[in-house]
Amino acid sequence: MKELKEIYLDHASTTPTDPRVLKEMLPYFSEKYGNPEVPHTKGKEALMAIDRARETIAKILNCRDSEIIFTGSATEANNLVIFGLAGASKKGTHIITSTIEHSSVRHPCDKLEEEGWEITRLKADKEGFVSPADLEKAITPQTALVSIMHANNEIGTIQPIEELGEICQKHNIPFHTDSCQTAGTHDLDVKKLKVDALTINGGKIYGPKGVGALYIKRGTPIEPIIYGGNHERGLRAGTHNTPGIIGLAKALELVQKEKDKENKRLSKLRDTMIEGILKNIPASILNGSKEKRLPGNINVTIPGIDAQELLLHLDQKDIYASSGAACTLGKNSPSNTLIAIGIPKKEVFSSIRISLGKQNTASDIEDAIKIMSDVCSKLRKRKP
Amino acid sequence: MKELKEIYLDHASTTPTDPRVLKEMLPYFSEKYGNPEVPHTKGKEALMAIDRARETIAKILNCRDSEIIFTGSATEANNLVIFGLAGASKKGTHIITSTIEHSSVRHPCDKLEEEGWEITRLKADKEGFVSPADLEKAITPQTALVSIMHANNEIGTIQPIEELGEICQKHNIPFHTDSCQTAGTHDLDVKKLKVDALTINGGKIYGPKGVGALYIKRGTPIEPIIYGGNHERGLRAGTHNTPGIIGLAKALELVQKEKDKENKRLSKLRDTMIEGILKNIPASILNGSKEKRLPGNINVTIPGIDAQELLLHLDQKDIYASSGAACTLGKNSPSNTLIAIGIPKKEVFSSIRISLGKQNTASDIEDAIKIMSDVCSKLRKRKP
Repeated sequence: MKELKEIYLDHASTTPTDPRVLKEMLPYFSEKYGNPEVPHTKGKEALMAIDRARETIAKILNCRDSEIIFTGSATEANNLVIFGLAGASKKGTHIITSTIEHSSVRHPCDKLEEEGWEITRLKADKEGFVSPADLEKAITPQTALVSIMHANNEIGTIQPIEELGEICQKHNIPFHTDSCQTAGTHDLDVKKLKVDALTINGGKIYGPKGVGALYIKRGTPIEPIIYGGNHERGLRAGTHNTPGIIGLAKALELVQKEKDKENKRLSKLRDTMIEGILKNIPASILNGSKEKRLPGNINVTIPGIDAQELLLHLDQKDIYASSGAACTLGKNSPSNTLIAIGIPKKEVFSSIRISLGKQNTASDIEDAIKIMSDVCSKLRKRKP
Repeated sequence: MKELKEIYLDHASTTPTDPRVLKEMLPYFSEKYGNPEVPHTKGKEALMAIDRARETIAKILNCRDSEIIFTGSATEANNLVIFGLAGASKKGTHIITSTIEHSSVRHPCDKLEEEGWEITRLKADKEGFVSPADLEKAITPQTALVSIMHANNEIGTIQPIEELGEICQKHNIPFHTDSCQTAGTHDLDVKKLKVDALTINGGKIYGPKGVGALYIKRGTPIEPIIYGGNHERGLRAGTHNTPGIIGLAKALELVQKEKDKENKRLSKLRDTMIEGILKNIPASILNGSKEKRLPGNINVTIPGIDAQELLLHLDQKDIYASSGAACTLGKNSPSNTLIAIGIPKKEVFSSIRISLGKQNTASDIEDAIKIMSDVCSKLRKRKP
């Protein structure tokens, strides 16, 4: 008899902490617990570990150590770059972003708009791409910041970041990208990407939750959003989360080292799954780009099926997928990205996101396709 | 031969994570890792654990579960209450605080002052007490918030919070207290304390770093400082740090359960240490109150001694103490509290803070007194 096991297909929402990462973190809870701000041996021990973590990340991003700011989440990092640049900007009160950003970029922009800033939201096309030509046209002498995500969290479309970055460089406008979805799959060299700010997240790359980091290019005017002690060059007050920071660095190091092999493996599983769904579930449609897509992302519309009902049935079979961005599910509102790329609301409510990761095997994918097809077929038959 | 061991006397800066707390956290890294915002079994497992943590804390604070907001640090919680109330206030643009607050309260107030708010900073007396009569006098029809810490992090003086709270209640003004230093030693019943907002911190109560919580009374107008997903009733966006939150709740539960016995034990050690220092180090002076003092706090001025030099010598003997608030040490500026209570600058630079905790034994204290006296005696002899 086949053993019952869970199939976790929601890695874009969050990943388990890699045991190698946790192992690295453990000594910093109860043994090397000093406050890194205090200059005694116990504090310095923690400070040195944080310095090493910062170095590890800076090396991967090809930047200076001092350009890395640790935060309590990627959401905080995105807020810091938007509000922080807005607060310090001498340039103007205009920000360019896109319609398909994560809520942690969209909502700070909304807040600034309420306060009188002008926000241009570039439209993404049907496949989820933001157009460099549109960016070029949107720039004004008042543009203080451009923020476009590296890859979309819902449909997995990978943006032409270098091209967008080049345009920003030409106009001398700080360019931020949210790399939460790409930190485990893509080269993060900020010079090649041509970005001035970049966000990463522990909980999306098999690292701990509750820790993020912002790369911010030296000389970019920015002010803090959290005030207090002089931590992180005065840009983020609050006692350092030593185990979290160490975990973030180790996680990034591991995913970056293993990404080529893992991307290949995941892309193959992803394509098998896409093919399996499109073949076995009649009328199903793939959302996003077929080519420039995150290795683990699958987003499909299954007409006639209520996504929540499908997910519930999958859940009962211990298959865990989701209907979109975890961060907005609480609101029971439809997927922001799918609406933004022009998918009719009815179809949006028939769409699910499957995001593959390290744990998934070929047999998981086979099982998941089969179960999903069976459930959809039953649900469709039941319809009047 | 006596075994070499370290004597950690800096618990006010940060504490080690209690192994019982870490044990509780561990399953939430690599096994129960789901994103609590996603409604599949894996997410719900995490959500339920967070709900239980919230309940545990709410029970101790004698408040509703929905009145607890988890944050990435106590600094963030203090920023949230100050900026959040300021942003939402319909009342006026006046805040009352004290001259001896932690930097995470002082600096947000400074920032608001730059933006046009009026800040009244109540003076603390020689022993570090804020006067209820002064508070009463400072209140105006424009007062939107009063924020006074529960106990001071440098000299350990415990404020008459209930009295201050009563005055605020009478005038219908939200009253916040930073309980980071008291969460392990004091009753945190918010109704008895008469507070509308209260901050706690994992890293000061043998819990994890990188997690804090704000109690905020239902109905208090407040807006977020970090925008994004709909987490924490829309008041703090960012994926929940499940292990951190669970650790915070477990830590608070343990310190609260054990506080009566531990307070008695620590007070005795503290008094032995104070007596030992005053007796063995000529001319040394205790700062703060002798009676209303945190059980683990000792703050002494040793005239003629450079505190940094003394601390370095102690460090070489594996004794770890500090010269004041960890969060401002980076600036090499003198202790804010000691200056605020009127201690001359020269004496401030001759002052050290010793903060005792769970790990310390009577023999540690005996050793520390002896070594401190020897070092001070040598340093004084060396002087020209």
